[in-house]
Amino acid sequence: MSRSKLLYAHSGGVTAVINATAAAVIAAAREQEGRIGGVLAAHRGIVGVLHEDLIDTSGLDAAALARLARTPGGAFGSCRFDLPHDDDGKVMERLFAVFDAHEVGFLLYNGGNGSMDAVARLQAEARRRAHPLVCIGVPKTVDNDIVGTDCCPGFGSAAKYLATSMLEAGLDIASMAGPKGSVFVMEVMGRNTGWLAAATALAAGGDPERPPHIVLVPEAAFDEEAFLARVRETTERLGYCAITVAEGIRRTDGSLLMEKSHDARGYVQLGGAGSAVARMIHGRLGYKHHWAIPDYLQRAGGHWLSATDHAQAIAVGRAAVAYAVQGLGGTMPAIRRVRDAPYQWDMAPLDCDAIANLERTLPADFVRADGLHVTAAACDYIRPLIVGEFTQPTQHGLPDYRAFDLPRLGRRLAAWRG
Amino acid sequence: MSRSKLLYAHSGGVTAVINATAAAVIAAAREQEGRIGGVLAAHRGIVGVLHEDLIDTSGLDAAALARLARTPGGAFGSCRFDLPHDDDGKVMERLFAVFDAHEVGFLLYNGGNGSMDAVARLQAEARRRAHPLVCIGVPKTVDNDIVGTDCCPGFGSAAKYLATSMLEAGLDIASMAGPKGSVFVMEVMGRNTGWLAAATALAAGGDPERPPHIVLVPEAAFDEEAFLARVRETTERLGYCAITVAEGIRRTDGSLLMEKSHDARGYVQLGGAGSAVARMIHGRLGYKHHWAIPDYLQRAGGHWLSATDHAQAIAVGRAAVAYAVQGLGGTMPAIRRVRDAPYQWDMAPLDCDAIANLERTLPADFVRADGLHVTAAACDYIRPLIVGEFTQPTQHGLPDYRAFDLPRLGRRLAAWRG
Repeated sequence: MSRSKLLYAHSGGVTAVINATAAAVIAAAREQEGRIGGVLAAHRGIVGVLHEDLIDTSGLDAAALARLARTPGGAFGSCRFDLPHDDDGKVMERLFAVFDAHEVGFLLYNGGNGSMDAVARLQAEARRRAHPLVCIGVPKTVDNDIVGTDCCPGFGSAAKYLATSMLEAGLDIASMAGPKGSVFVMEVMGRNTGWLAAATALAAGGDPERPPHIVLVPEAAFDEEAFLARVRETTERLGYCAITVAEGIRRTDGSLLMEKSHDARGYVQLGGAGSAVARMIHGRLGYKHHWAIPDYLQRAGGHWLSATDHAQAIAVGRAAVAYAVQGLGGTMPAIRRVRDAPYQWDMAPLDCDAIANLERTLPADFVRADGLHVTAAACDYIRPLIVGEFTQPTQHGLPDYRAFDLPRLGRRLAAWRG
Repeated sequence: MSRSKLLYAHSGGVTAVINATAAAVIAAAREQEGRIGGVLAAHRGIVGVLHEDLIDTSGLDAAALARLARTPGGAFGSCRFDLPHDDDGKVMERLFAVFDAHEVGFLLYNGGNGSMDAVARLQAEARRRAHPLVCIGVPKTVDNDIVGTDCCPGFGSAAKYLATSMLEAGLDIASMAGPKGSVFVMEVMGRNTGWLAAATALAAGGDPERPPHIVLVPEAAFDEEAFLARVRETTERLGYCAITVAEGIRRTDGSLLMEKSHDARGYVQLGGAGSAVARMIHGRLGYKHHWAIPDYLQRAGGHWLSATDHAQAIAVGRAAVAYAVQGLGGTMPAIRRVRDAPYQWDMAPLDCDAIANLERTLPADFVRADGLHVTAAACDYIRPLIVGEFTQPTQHGLPDYRAFDLPRLGRRLAAWRG
């Protein structure tokens, strides 16, 4: 059997551990030297493939791969790009032309739901063309919304970061609580799902008097009056109230809570749900209000990784290479939970066709009936995913992240004019 | 000589290491059992003293003190309260009544500039009354704006948190950079001073191409056109631009940049400078924009303490007890820098009268001439303050912070009706 190259690509938003997956893919592929003739990485994901902007990873030695595996962000660059359905196959044609020009026989695509759709479509296209390409999905998303896997690499570290942040900010605001009342709102990622918001509930350790006192998720409609009543009741009892808000919460009429405002030039601007909620409380109840928006910090926290998440990020990368050489095109390594405590898991190939473009939301029994918090079942599910610390080497007090030397391959095709 | 009690109080905003100072004060005071007959702590700072709401710390054993020393927030509660000048001495009268009712001979007041004013005034009042009270200031503030000390405990850990956050978020946004351009803005604390904003410059490691590309501090007037020109130039070159904004930046006319908006009920609301800047860039230049507001997270990051800061927080607590028994009333232990690299420091008593209510801003040579960044001199000053990591014990993946048993002393006076 001929040796062909493996092409690896990040897809969509990056995470604190996606580089760990990348490093594992490269290391595992090198162990398959009888089957895999080298590893290329797309610069900026599938857009880089279209533009034939490909990185030669052969110069990354073991030390560089170890460093890559602990560096947050996506070292090869990523993008948000969905394969079009209405371009008469031009994008597909170009992708296969690039694969052929660079002897790519294996494509490992590291992303979320949309990426698994791309994997399924690319594999179907290869079948249609009787092309030998083997395309494997590799799960990644802080949103934890891929169907059919216990969890998604990237989520555990973001969950740990946010639960720790709520725990620590909660101690701060509790210190400052007084008779006038104060509220703290933390807005977390999650346009359609409340997984990251739910993770902050771990900060309370099961005690309803400890932060967060309220957790708002997109799966439960936001009822302003019921919410404010709970805020008032909590603040009157404790002197303060700490609240987690997923960015995508919606009112009972389905409208997003993100605030709308006009800037000095009249542009309509969307602000965050967190500041909207904090301002609502201040306006209606008069309490002192603070809000935090960790934004990118929550998905880039390499200084405080979940060791469990990091191990899973590596494992899915290695499994994807194994599936590739086994010819399991169109699949993704899915994580399966064997037991909760102690957490045990394994992996199995899952057909990307069956999960593409689906979205895993919080199950009904993870959201409290009043829609203002998550349940113990949600905490039991998330708890093992944040366990374990990871020691980063430091220099001058900061994690020792450094740039990588990523030489590009020469172009063999005409420029892409898509 | 009679043994009298030592009363310790937090003042103002808390930090990730103020409890380390508190624990050091309690431990050091117990070593002075010939002079100090026990340690009381005010619940909620000076307001707690007025209300005779005092905590008996004698039940905190060595294990509890060790745990206290690594717990962020202020375990005894804090408040923002300035001693009034216009109350005919009623507050002073009440404070001394409480001191006398509980045999308090030593007051250790752990705060910022305003607190050092309170220390000076309380000591002056004791002299006027020929009262034996010895009042010592203990420095603490993430703002790093106390005059006469090399730095303020609390700052180093917040600086480390923010520099790490910019470093990590910078890797994320660099991964996602593309031809359309994107900007990331992180708003940090600092109403009047740019110390925390300046700390984020450490993330760049001296490389002008690495985040943060722009650092806006209150000490430099915000020139919108010069700023936008730099954002455009950076984004066109790199595909992205990362910016730190201190919350208190002002326009050249002196007005705050915090945005003003009206909520649904017509209330005027102040938003943050960070979102104002991000929206300005989006409106004027059209780039994709994200902003982060760490808010309380930046001063509560116990999971990522600066070991240097933690050591200084302990040292000022121990020194303050030593000054108390030496009768150095009206002073504060000031940190003195002996050398930069390796960082060496010691402490000396500083007269609170000389520094009360002053504010230490960034010196002119710490701010770049164009007002859009800080200098290498600023980085050289801050770098040693963030050095050293501190391992927190964890439970289920989160720092193992637990509540403390803080029994109250019985009241001996009539209720305060101030």
